[in-house]
Amino acid sequence: KRPRDYGIRFGVLPTGPFNAITDVPGVLVGQVTLRQDQTIRTGVTAILPHSGNQFQQKNPAAIYIGNGFGKLMGYSQVEELGTLETPIILTNTLSVPTAADALIDYTLAQKGNEQVRSVNAVVGETNDGFLNDIRGRHVTKQHVLDALKQAKAGAVAEGNVGAGTGTVCFGFKGGIGTSSRKLPASLGGYTVGVLVQTNFGGVLQIAGVPVGVALGRYDFKKNLDGSCMMVVLTDAPLDARNLKRLAKRAFMGLAQTGGIASNGSGDYVIAVSTAYQIPHETTSSFDEQKVLRNDNVSPLFMAVIEATEEAIINSLFAAQTLTGDQGHRVEQLPVEKVVELIRKAGQLH
Amino acid sequence: KRPRDYGIRFGVLPTGPFNAITDVPGVLVGQVTLRQDQTIRTGVTAILPHSGNQFQQKNPAAIYIGNGFGKLMGYSQVEELGTLETPIILTNTLSVPTAADALIDYTLAQKGNEQVRSVNAVVGETNDGFLNDIRGRHVTKQHVLDALKQAKAGAVAEGNVGAGTGTVCFGFKGGIGTSSRKLPASLGGYTVGVLVQTNFGGVLQIAGVPVGVALGRYDFKKNLDGSCMMVVLTDAPLDARNLKRLAKRAFMGLAQTGGIASNGSGDYVIAVSTAYQIPHETTSSFDEQKVLRNDNVSPLFMAVIEATEEAIINSLFAAQTLTGDQGHRVEQLPVEKVVELIRKAGQLH
Amino acid sequence: KRPRDYGIRFGVLPTGPFNAITDVPGVLVGQVTLRQDQTIRTGVTAILPHSGNQFQQKNPAAIYIGNGFGKLMGYSQVEELGTLETPIILTNTLSVPTAADALIDYTLAQKGNEQVRSVNAVVGETNDGFLNDIRGRHVTKQHVLDALKQAKAGAVAEGNVGAGTGTVCFGFKGGIGTSSRKLPASLGGYTVGVLVQTNFGGVLQIAGVPVGVALGRYDFKKNLDGSCMMVVLTDAPLDARNLKRLAKRAFMGLAQTGGIASNGSGDYVIAVSTAYQIPHETTSSFDEQKVLRNDNVSPLFMAVIEATEEAIINSLFAAQTLTGDQGHRVEQLPVEKVVELIRKAGQLH
Amino acid sequence: KRPRDYGIRFGVLPTGPFNAITDVPGVLVGQVTLRQDQTIRTGVTAILPHSGNQFQQKNPAAIYIGNGFGKLMGYSQVEELGTLETPIILTNTLSVPTAADALIDYTLAQKGNEQVRSVNAVVGETNDGFLNDIRGRHVTKQHVLDALKQAKAGAVAEGNVGAGTGTVCFGFKGGIGTSSRKLPASLGGYTVGVLVQTNFGGVLQIAGVPVGVALGRYDFKKNLDGSCMMVVLTDAPLDARNLKRLAKRAFMGLAQTGGIASNGSGDYVIAVSTAYQIPHETTSSFDEQKVLRNDNVSPLFMAVIEATEEAIINSLFAAQTLTGDQGHRVEQLPVEKVVELIRKAGQLH
Repeated sequence: KRPRDYGIRFGVLPTGPFNAITDVPGVLVGQVTLRQDQTIRTGVTAILPHSGNQFQQKNPAAIYIGNGFGKLMGYSQVEELGTLETPIILTNTLSVPTAADALIDYTLAQKGNEQVRSVNAVVGETNDGFLNDIRGRHVTKQHVLDALKQAKAGAVAEGNVGAGTGTVCFGFKGGIGTSSRKLPASLGGYTVGVLVQTNFGGVLQIAGVPVGVALGRYDFKKNLDGSCMMVVLTDAPLDARNLKRLAKRAFMGLAQTGGIASNGSGDYVIAVSTAYQIPHETTSSFDEQKVLRNDNVSPLFMAVIEATEEAIINSLFAAQTLTGDQGHRVEQLPVEKVVELIRKAGQLH
Repeated sequence: KRPRDYGIRFGVLPTGPFNAITDVPGVLVGQVTLRQDQTIRTGVTAILPHSGNQFQQKNPAAIYIGNGFGKLMGYSQVEELGTLETPIILTNTLSVPTAADALIDYTLAQKGNEQVRSVNAVVGETNDGFLNDIRGRHVTKQHVLDALKQAKAGAVAEGNVGAGTGTVCFGFKGGIGTSSRKLPASLGGYTVGVLVQTNFGGVLQIAGVPVGVALGRYDFKKNLDGSCMMVVLTDAPLDARNLKRLAKRAFMGLAQTGGIASNGSGDYVIAVSTAYQIPHETTSSFDEQKVLRNDNVSPLFMAVIEATEEAIINSLFAAQTLTGDQGHRVEQLPVEKVVELIRKAGQLH
Repeated sequence: KRPRDYGIRFGVLPTGPFNAITDVPGVLVGQVTLRQDQTIRTGVTAILPHSGNQFQQKNPAAIYIGNGFGKLMGYSQVEELGTLETPIILTNTLSVPTAADALIDYTLAQKGNEQVRSVNAVVGETNDGFLNDIRGRHVTKQHVLDALKQAKAGAVAEGNVGAGTGTVCFGFKGGIGTSSRKLPASLGGYTVGVLVQTNFGGVLQIAGVPVGVALGRYDFKKNLDGSCMMVVLTDAPLDARNLKRLAKRAFMGLAQTGGIASNGSGDYVIAVSTAYQIPHETTSSFDEQKVLRNDNVSPLFMAVIEATEEAIINSLFAAQTLTGDQGHRVEQLPVEKVVELIRKAGQLH
Repeated sequence: KRPRDYGIRFGVLPTGPFNAITDVPGVLVGQVTLRQDQTIRTGVTAILPHSGNQFQQKNPAAIYIGNGFGKLMGYSQVEELGTLETPIILTNTLSVPTAADALIDYTLAQKGNEQVRSVNAVVGETNDGFLNDIRGRHVTKQHVLDALKQAKAGAVAEGNVGAGTGTVCFGFKGGIGTSSRKLPASLGGYTVGVLVQTNFGGVLQIAGVPVGVALGRYDFKKNLDGSCMMVVLTDAPLDARNLKRLAKRAFMGLAQTGGIASNGSGDYVIAVSTAYQIPHETTSSFDEQKVLRNDNVSPLFMAVIEATEEAIINSLFAAQTLTGDQGHRVEQLPVEKVVELIRKAGQLH
């Protein structure tokens, strides 16, 4: 059961049908989970803006760096050109090069890309080295290619899955989470979807309820580090400049959960619009863009904040207690206790 | 009565004695309030890192731009050089030039500055044009100089005062607010103080309680615009790079209150350390800095987030219903009702 | 006579008819020069992207900060929203607030702006305090309004005029300079115009010839400070992202002259496209933009570099020896000697 | 023979003894060149700020993005924390993941790093896909580890070597180049060293002489793309903020050669100070830094500009005609002709 099934609400906007990033039409997610022996607790999560050739049909995109203690690849080209030319891969910190290499394989091998000699692989990560033998670098290129191949629309698995297999969040087991918002037709009817890989600390709040304090599970200094990767997709027609603004709002959603973006955090947001594509090659000298005016983006900001908050909490509700490398064990969020706290706060609906 | 007097708590860290920006030793605040006729509802708030000659004894500083739809002056030099060389003035949007001019007057006239021919005036603003005849530009240089002159340590007036005289926040009367945090000695014992000028929108939360929804006072599209100026002072020894990181966390504190940094927001944070001063002139070729290591800044991040959240809510609790220009009227936050909501949520302590 | 009249060439692209920023259709320039007594050597230069109501019909724009030791106003809103909503004013460092105040006056007073309560005045500056009694702040709002009113198309006065009246460049008298480039039809036929206010140092090169070394007029440490304001206009259809890239290339043009962007420099570039306007208010939710693809902007980069280099050198050729405040005297570039050096280098055409 | 051996001078400051990045005490460079069959023309260049454990003894560092159409890895953590924790590797575009993976291997394997679970590998690249079968990704981790192992002080090979094996610059064969400057004792006596991987276009100038035009070898649109990686080392005590300013000046040095940072360029500068090290772990809460004041950095700016310009030209003088993949052939710079042009311009000394 997801938080919403318990009656917990995040913000005021309605969700899409799956309450997932895949509510944005065309978006696909694929995940490969590695759980072997006592030591391997990691994986790969792939997000595809569309099912076609991403290199030939790029999407407008932007990346916001909340706190840059991380190894995300692909930043500067997205910033400079405003486009995304590969699917997005999330994995563990030390497997970023492997994932990038796999994205290059994937791109070079696609039909129509026979002459491609430059690929800006976009890979995000968090560090699952507490539960996972991260130094062993157990993710292979094949795992990444499998995640890409398995990508599909519809419901998205959450918790100890894919790149979230071994992550820790607010001292509890973290993982993958996702959520979406759909604006009313009067505000454009656009969908915003968010997917997160949660591995960070702070003082946990759920729907505003200070759960971390109530459970005595927070710390001023320890357990703060870690990271949060956030991916935002939308079908709203936005250029890179406004996508960067959207991305920044995901960081505000993280703040809503009590995250503090500690020194050791690698908090990044990748925001992509599926509303239009920018062809790699074309006979035209121009891109013709019909984009939302600045005046009309605020509801999307709200949607991103809400969906990010909910995606993070979804990851915590779905994640399960896990023992891993060196016998490290991380407990799952005590969901019943949490729901009770929220009920007492009058926040069950 | 401030929220804390009602038993409302924001986060887990203790406040300083005044729960104000002036808890940072040496910091002074001066405010001039303009309320005349039915139309003038504005003012000036001055924050001085120290009582000396700011130009000759600069402080390390940084500015973070949350959402840049605003007219803050002085950004690029602070960014480039990492220092603050004037006090900080907050006022209304269209009076920024007047305030900057006054800061130049103030600086040129100070003893020891007879040869100064370049002054980077730092002025922030929000737009009080709903309650105030902002087009009339009623703030004069003398008002600014008076605010500087009156600056003092100790308790800071909140609500409809100084630059907060005519502001609106979450659809209620906003204003000036302030708060502080003091880290435990084990984390360095540093003080962080925040002062805000609140004039923004979103879906109000107080200590996590969804007050805005409960009061039916939020909107997807209207009343979202506005801005929030945030000033962060600390006696922790930080260089400009880490001050910028602190500044960014104030933006996370804004998020905690339900602010969304809408398109029309000018959300800026100015962060300054009082731990050391950088002389304008010296015979040495070097600055010798003993600064906190990156590893030790996370507790300060938490302090900034908490103090910013509390400062914003303090501004709402202190502000009073006001009628102004064109008969516009903005109600104050219904404090008793709000306290009751928080009590019901189990968040009164 | 301008350098080009002597046969000096900068780069490989042809100029527009006036070899001035006003070669971009619709662009107007107005200048007011203040030369009074022995002490006042300053002024105002206004650049208008179009003759209409700039606030109601904004242009896409971007600002690049080369070295931020300066007081340029208006940065963050241009960066956030990607638009310019006032004409651009250049003046001296301490008169920036006066100029901004005048731009607010100008905007509030324009027909159609009766309800405007927020104005992002864009003002650049350099410090003419060596020749000008800058502390006296002799520029008035009326001077700025006059510059705006007098703005016109056609040839632009260079040298000791407007905001360049009292500036110093490479140890010689600097000032206002302008130049343009027109791309061949095969590359779109676009025009790029640049106007500069030169007040910086380094080791002067003219068309690659090391004039500064030959004249023994450079220094490792002194005379380096100062600033350069650069304004780039183009009729190429670019959005803010690509305009920022154009702006950055003006900084490369500055490098071509031997400028080093010293610590004390305030080197800023404001880039604006006149190809389309973004209405302040409209019934549409969308901006429809037909913008040049990334692939097609490189020739514009080259045009900006060339025109900036030439504009800077034009300012030096036009400027005349000037005595000013405190009897300070700055010699003009010894043009005949310089032309001879260039001739010897085989660079007269 | 290097340009300086012909009497060509770049700027006014003296070089260090090797006129190489290794003139900065302690800096090591290692290169592995891959030339096999008709298709493999690539390699690896490693730059080590010191010979110790880079992860445990980090250096202050910054990265400037001139034009971000590139795949440099490691940007955001350097930006956030201001430190470099691995050696710097340069290679070809599609081998960045391999190089990053090798840097992780290298770091994890070093004595003292047994507990390291996070490594920010810094890898730069340019695209040698015209001469090299870049899609074949022939660089292996062992090549990278070999480059690291072979790194040494002293003279640095230039031209078709290491990461410069297959690059093209201004339409001629490019490659690796290096240069240095030593400030006079009165300005601190610091050394600045630069190493470049040249693969970009524009209108070539050498010591200001328009060689590209004279040789008829430039283009408005084609041959412009490519990239330039620039690495700046110095023993001047600078923090990350001032290192970023230094890095930006290397981009000005690129401008001096006639580079235009075209749309397709990935122009990055990594700047590192060897003056002090920041330990990964320490019992102190503080970093004690004695850093150069802002006022004293301008001569270093000039040194960076000059050394970058010279390093680029050095790469062209050293590179030799090369035939590679698909029979593509790139001619070397016609050095004798170029020297003659420079002699005619009066620029041989």
